[in-house]
Amino acid sequence: MVPHLVTALNGPINELEARVLESMPAIERWFRLEWMEHTPPFYTSVDIRNAGFKLAPVETNLFPGGWNNLTEDMLPLAVQAAMAAIEKICPEAKNLLLIPGQDTRNSFYMTNVARLRRIFMLAGLNVRLGTLDPAITESVSIDLPDGDQITVEPLVRTERRLGLKNFDPCTILLNNELSAGIPGMLEDLHEQYLLPPLHAGGSVRRKANHFQSYEEVAKKFAKLLGMDPWLINPMYASCGDVDVGEGASLEAVKAGADALLGKIRRKYKEYGINEKPFVVVKADSGASGLGSMTVRDAKELDALDRRRRDLSALAGSGPQVCRMLVQEGVPTYERMNDAVAEPVVYMMDRYVVGGFYRIHADRGVDENLNAPGARFVPLAFAQSHHLPRPGVKPGASAPNRFYMYGVVARLAMLAASYELEATDPDAEVYD
Amino acid sequence: MVPHLVTALNGPINELEARVLESMPAIERWFRLEWMEHTPPFYTSVDIRNAGFKLAPVETNLFPGGWNNLTEDMLPLAVQAAMAAIEKICPEAKNLLLIPGQDTRNSFYMTNVARLRRIFMLAGLNVRLGTLDPAITESVSIDLPDGDQITVEPLVRTERRLGLKNFDPCTILLNNELSAGIPGMLEDLHEQYLLPPLHAGGSVRRKANHFQSYEEVAKKFAKLLGMDPWLINPMYASCGDVDVGEGASLEAVKAGADALLGKIRRKYKEYGINEKPFVVVKADSGASGLGSMTVRDAKELDALDRRRRDLSALAGSGPQVCRMLVQEGVPTYERMNDAVAEPVVYMMDRYVVGGFYRIHADRGVDENLNAPGARFVPLAFAQSHHLPRPGVKPGASAPNRFYMYGVVARLAMLAASYELEATDPDAEVYD
Repeated sequence: MVPHLVTALNGPINELEARVLESMPAIERWFRLEWMEHTPPFYTSVDIRNAGFKLAPVETNLFPGGWNNLTEDMLPLAVQAAMAAIEKICPEAKNLLLIPGQDTRNSFYMTNVARLRRIFMLAGLNVRLGTLDPAITESVSIDLPDGDQITVEPLVRTERRLGLKNFDPCTILLNNELSAGIPGMLEDLHEQYLLPPLHAGGSVRRKANHFQSYEEVAKKFAKLLGMDPWLINPMYASCGDVDVGEGASLEAVKAGADALLGKIRRKYKEYGINEKPFVVVKADSGASGLGSMTVRDAKELDALDRRRRDLSALAGSGPQVCRMLVQEGVPTYERMNDAVAEPVVYMMDRYVVGGFYRIHADRGVDENLNAPGARFVPLAFAQSHHLPRPGVKPGASAPNRFYMYGVVARLAMLAASYELEATDPDAEVYD
Repeated sequence: MVPHLVTALNGPINELEARVLESMPAIERWFRLEWMEHTPPFYTSVDIRNAGFKLAPVETNLFPGGWNNLTEDMLPLAVQAAMAAIEKICPEAKNLLLIPGQDTRNSFYMTNVARLRRIFMLAGLNVRLGTLDPAITESVSIDLPDGDQITVEPLVRTERRLGLKNFDPCTILLNNELSAGIPGMLEDLHEQYLLPPLHAGGSVRRKANHFQSYEEVAKKFAKLLGMDPWLINPMYASCGDVDVGEGASLEAVKAGADALLGKIRRKYKEYGINEKPFVVVKADSGASGLGSMTVRDAKELDALDRRRRDLSALAGSGPQVCRMLVQEGVPTYERMNDAVAEPVVYMMDRYVVGGFYRIHADRGVDENLNAPGARFVPLAFAQSHHLPRPGVKPGASAPNRFYMYGVVARLAMLAASYELEATDPDAEVYD
């Protein structure tokens, strides 16, 4: 089922797998009860890293691209989940407006958009694409490598609604992370569902909020299973605002990294893990996972002159003062043909509908794989996620491991739900 | 995709297929709105017959067996649909009691039960089997042909609840049609969900009620698509109580058959169909589809002496006075290796999750195929139902035909929902 995946995982993860498998009814019931209280994001992808001794989500994307990396086999599951999602949000929906990212000339990205369009068409909606790119003022048809064609149209904003020429959607789905900020065109919409909500946008969302919610979720889940939450929770430290420009003081980042490395060291000692801990320093907001820095010793941050440029790069085109996040590094010990691999799990509504391995031949086990040069290996993930085989020896069954990945991915999705509730600017407060 | 299916279908059905495909968004929206008002049966299978000029459900089973006839590929869809169903009915569920039919020595039937058990286990429930067979007084393990094993336990009834020894279920799922009547053990249960409800049981359910509801649904749907409802609706006549014992008078059945044959003849003329109409006479209640009689001329019923025995057989072991239903015969013109074939569509909650072709080498196009000697050919139905390809020439694409079958099956399921509401003895009346 996973022919090329070479893994030699043992120890705590196999125990966790066994615990997760035997607790399936309790886990599924727990999720059902959580979803009675909380609304799942419309769609989510989660990057997971399996260190053998620990399994943790490292990135939760609320505007997932890469749907084209999933197998054709997952389509029916995604369609069925999309049907469930639409039914809940807007049963009377006819028209769905899909807003892709700006990168309409990237045919790989647009193949992802075409896949999404197909899913929602098969779920029974009229789907059209509208772009935020002001340079596109009339319909543009784009040829895709697989022979398909996709048409992108300019958006038409009226006082209360957003649509296209002769197309008034009930629901607007963003596949655009809005990293550069929230366009006025998307604000103050009336009687239209905008998904994900604007406060999930890349320019306002804070990773620290997500991992705070994830910690809360992981603790609840760990209590249910009677295990140490650390086994699924990447620790983190939020360093607040850091001036990464001229004369930057990295004291806060350094202190955060130092404290976190100490905490990881104690955990490694507790579990008898003979590895050198590392942390990952990244901007607390902004595009997913791009530009992170692996640090094994806080002193590395002392080489300020050398690092300042790197940190400026992390902040991207944003302001020179930005919030930084220091996160426990989770190595990934999965391999595919000698290349480092990490699973990415895709969800629609509350359902796991597919996944793939992201592999990168030029990256180390402690590095971000979501970088130029990454390749994607679709696996029968969707199928096997649903088909765990209780009773099979832990670590020996791909479906069982995939079920566990699906559980952890759903924990991260639940955390995103908590996070979006906590950060909702329109939330009613009942204090 | 359907390599062995030889079909030469053309005419109205291809027009219907084209209409259904182009109306997909309207159809899916219509179903969503219907399901806001009506509750789908927990699970349903529908026998469909495709006459080329007409496509109609001929049997709607609310206690579907034969889940083992579906491909392994459909499991994830069924599991996901089961998750959705459980979430709606009883999110706090932990334990599911599955009550199989009496035929625990039929290993083919028990393989079906094992498949159902697997679906609900994978959806995250503890599943155990309890039998209504009073002869089984302790746990019995049954070896299945595929190497699996299944354990059936005696039911334990307390004043308010039904369960097994050390097993208190929140939900009880019947895979037993209760044709012989409703066991007292299942009555007056408190705080437990019994699915399907007792008034769906074979001893009380009336086919005429179902087809009356189906006619209502078919009319609504035909109006949505701007087509003649007859294209998807099998006409019927209910003949009321008929004494099928000694000195039976079949006048009512004869009159019903005669009138219905006349109506079909007019429809055939309207559509230029050069075939001899037929009707099917069957008991209005009782086990699904078994014992039906094909009649091409009401005079055939005059040969009363010869027929009386047949009709007594139709009534089965029930009373000698029974209600009879006369239904428009829909020939099936699908073939697999020269054998007559009819599709059977399986649904869990509101979702189509799979299907197969029932084929019978020794039966004619106008005969019931659900008879000893039938074989089952699982097809990639579940997958392709969700993947229609708009734009492909009607009649040329298996996924498109399967999508249409799924729509008609869902119409029959919706009719069952109407029917169960109308016949619910506990319904609150707001007149």
